[in-house]
Amino acid sequence: MRTGRLEAFSDGVLAIVITIMVLELKAPEDTTFQSLLSVAPVFISYVLSFIYIGIYWNNHHHLFQISHKVNGSVLWANLHLLFWLSLIPFTTSWLGENEHYYEALPVATYGFVLLMSAVAYFILERTLIKNHDKDYLLARLIIYKVKDYVSTALYIIAIPLAFVYTWLAIVCYAIVALIWLMPDKKMETLIDEVEV
Amino acid sequence: MRTGRLEAFSDGVLAIVITIMVLELKAPEDTTFQSLLSVAPVFISYVLSFIYIGIYWNNHHHLFQISHKVNGSVLWANLHLLFWLSLIPFTTSWLGENEHYYEALPVATYGFVLLMSAVAYFILERTLIKNHDKDYLLARLIIYKVKDYVSTALYIIAIPLAFVYTWLAIVCYAIVALIWLMPDKKMETLIDEVEV
Amino acid sequence: MRTGRLEAFSDGVLAIVITIMVLELKAPEDTTFQSLLSVAPVFISYVLSFIYIGIYWNNHHHLFQISHKVNGSVLWANLHLLFWLSLIPFTTSWLGENEHYYEALPVATYGFVLLMSAVAYFILERTLIKNHDKDYLLARLIIYKVKDYVSTALYIIAIPLAFVYTWLAIVCYAIVALIWLMPDKKMETLIDEVEV
Amino acid sequence: MRTGRLEAFSDGVLAIVITIMVLELKAPEDTTFQSLLSVAPVFISYVLSFIYIGIYWNNHHHLFQISHKVNGSVLWANLHLLFWLSLIPFTTSWLGENEHYYEALPVATYGFVLLMSAVAYFILERTLIKNHDKDYLLARLIIYKVKDYVSTALYIIAIPLAFVYTWLAIVCYAIVALIWLMPDKKMETLIDEVEV
Repeated sequence: MRTGRLEAFSDGVLAIVITIMVLELKAPEDTTFQSLLSVAPVFISYVLSFIYIGIYWNNHHHLFQISHKVNGSVLWANLHLLFWLSLIPFTTSWLGENEHYYEALPVATYGFVLLMSAVAYFILERTLIKNHDKDYLLARLIIYKVKDYVSTALYIIAIPLAFVYTWLAIVCYAIVALIWLMPDKKMETLIDEVEV
Repeated sequence: MRTGRLEAFSDGVLAIVITIMVLELKAPEDTTFQSLLSVAPVFISYVLSFIYIGIYWNNHHHLFQISHKVNGSVLWANLHLLFWLSLIPFTTSWLGENEHYYEALPVATYGFVLLMSAVAYFILERTLIKNHDKDYLLARLIIYKVKDYVSTALYIIAIPLAFVYTWLAIVCYAIVALIWLMPDKKMETLIDEVEV
Repeated sequence: MRTGRLEAFSDGVLAIVITIMVLELKAPEDTTFQSLLSVAPVFISYVLSFIYIGIYWNNHHHLFQISHKVNGSVLWANLHLLFWLSLIPFTTSWLGENEHYYEALPVATYGFVLLMSAVAYFILERTLIKNHDKDYLLARLIIYKVKDYVSTALYIIAIPLAFVYTWLAIVCYAIVALIWLMPDKKMETLIDEVEV
Repeated sequence: MRTGRLEAFSDGVLAIVITIMVLELKAPEDTTFQSLLSVAPVFISYVLSFIYIGIYWNNHHHLFQISHKVNGSVLWANLHLLFWLSLIPFTTSWLGENEHYYEALPVATYGFVLLMSAVAYFILERTLIKNHDKDYLLARLIIYKVKDYVSTALYIIAIPLAFVYTWLAIVCYAIVALIWLMPDKKMETLIDEVEV
């Protein structure tokens, strides 16, 4: 089976997930600067989650640029990834629950959903590799994936850390986001090679 | 008429239906473990419905891989299917109404919407067969469809059962989901044949 | 310019409009048959609006099957149509405001939005004809459009009628929907001709 | 990398942003003309924002008609644009907070988000130019972009103006919208040239 509809469906889900979070940005009840400031914690979590969904969309986009076919297992591995990503608006909204500071449990839950998303992405990659032959570019790329190990380690540290130094856990999530925001020239070069 | 836009529109609707349910996962009002647990019944129904929409999307995807053309009747048969599927977020949300256990009527209603979705899918298949010629792969596949009969039987048993042993009805729905989660190798092989 | 993205964007907006209305189908607060019945007026308006959006999607789909190019004016004529259609969830929700019967003003407003949608669709057709050359199929089709005149007449009758016999106005809207649900064989045959 | 999925994802996000605002158009609690009128300020802001998103979608559409490839930087420049546009429903909703008149801070915030969207669009253009070679049409077009400078100037004037003559700021935003509604024949002609 071709990859077209899987990509279109994933684009649809991710586009909704990324914009659904704005619904949580309720217009302040008053029109003063103070009321605008009260939206700040929700806003900051929105920015972080927007970047995370952006990263996943970018990686998903790269992944299917080099994949040529899907089967039933790939469809479900992809739906599994979308499932965890679809929980991000929920955890984002809980993160901004308290106007004054971030609380332990929502921060840990947020990290757990990020960790499970990373696991789901990993499963998707493995399922794609199984479904393709030896020449499949992803199999070659996978060894370089230091970023994946660092991110996973940071999530695993951040989840218990949330109960001790909540803000440090948030910093961990932000570091992971920054790591992925840096452009991956090697990946891009390889994709361009394949397309030519 | 070609199938492209019908697929794109269905992808859009299903992507929204699958993510709209998360809006019902309201962030708990408190930040304790207990408040997180109170979201559990809604969460479990969300998981079940996510899997159901996933199954329908997968089957829809397979169906249009082997279909080459649509006409006005197919467009409406497809909209009819999307109509019933679009009611799933509503019944899912009602299912999680009571925090402590599932209640009879919401469980029966949930089953009714699943049953009508199955009927709508069946009508869509028949409409597609009518619109294609003798060589149409779907006509060949249709005889093997044991899964369809088992699912329909389970829905019809589960709806009245919901008023006696509510949990058993939920178990029926879960069994149907499991049946469909198992990969359909025969279907995939046939699709690959057509594409080559 | 090609029509691809205009179609994709319109599919997206219509998919959202058609599913957004379900958000108004709030899960009943109780789990009795009576509480399920209380959702009935909202549900009936949902069904009617679902059919209307379905009709517009079908017609839009047909329209762009026979159109090959767009320009800035077509993009805006299309956005103008989407604007009026995007108001349907709002008027649908107002229509179901009162649990016991439909009220005059919401029914008239609903008709007004339908009328404006019809006008916007008409403008879109004219803009497309202007943008294509003599051979353009739509120019040939336009003369047969009895359906359009009947619908417009029914809307114009229904709007004032809503203030006298509210239910009769609803009947008018239902008749228009039925007229458009009947398959348009002539249109389909012409489209198939063009594609071959 | 090809532009297909970037366009599809952007279409998805913009389609959601443009329709999400309707959710703020809550059905009036009463069914009188007066209650309908009370929705007017929210409705007017909805119309203005609908036009703005429409303008951005049109420009985005034109932009990628003449662009052939994307890289990681373009993907992020595009996500950055989508981020600011995704805030428009929030500021639109705040704009209609007070039923009787527009208040200073929401009007200024609205202008700020429009200004940042314009900046993000500018960055996206520059990133695209960097990623293409000398022949790239956009590089030629960019010099004519008087509209951009006028819009930016009007935003910068309007933001402080909102605190003095609030309505004049709204007028500025409306003027910018009108400027962009006028068809850009030169752009269209150039695109048609490229396609042929």
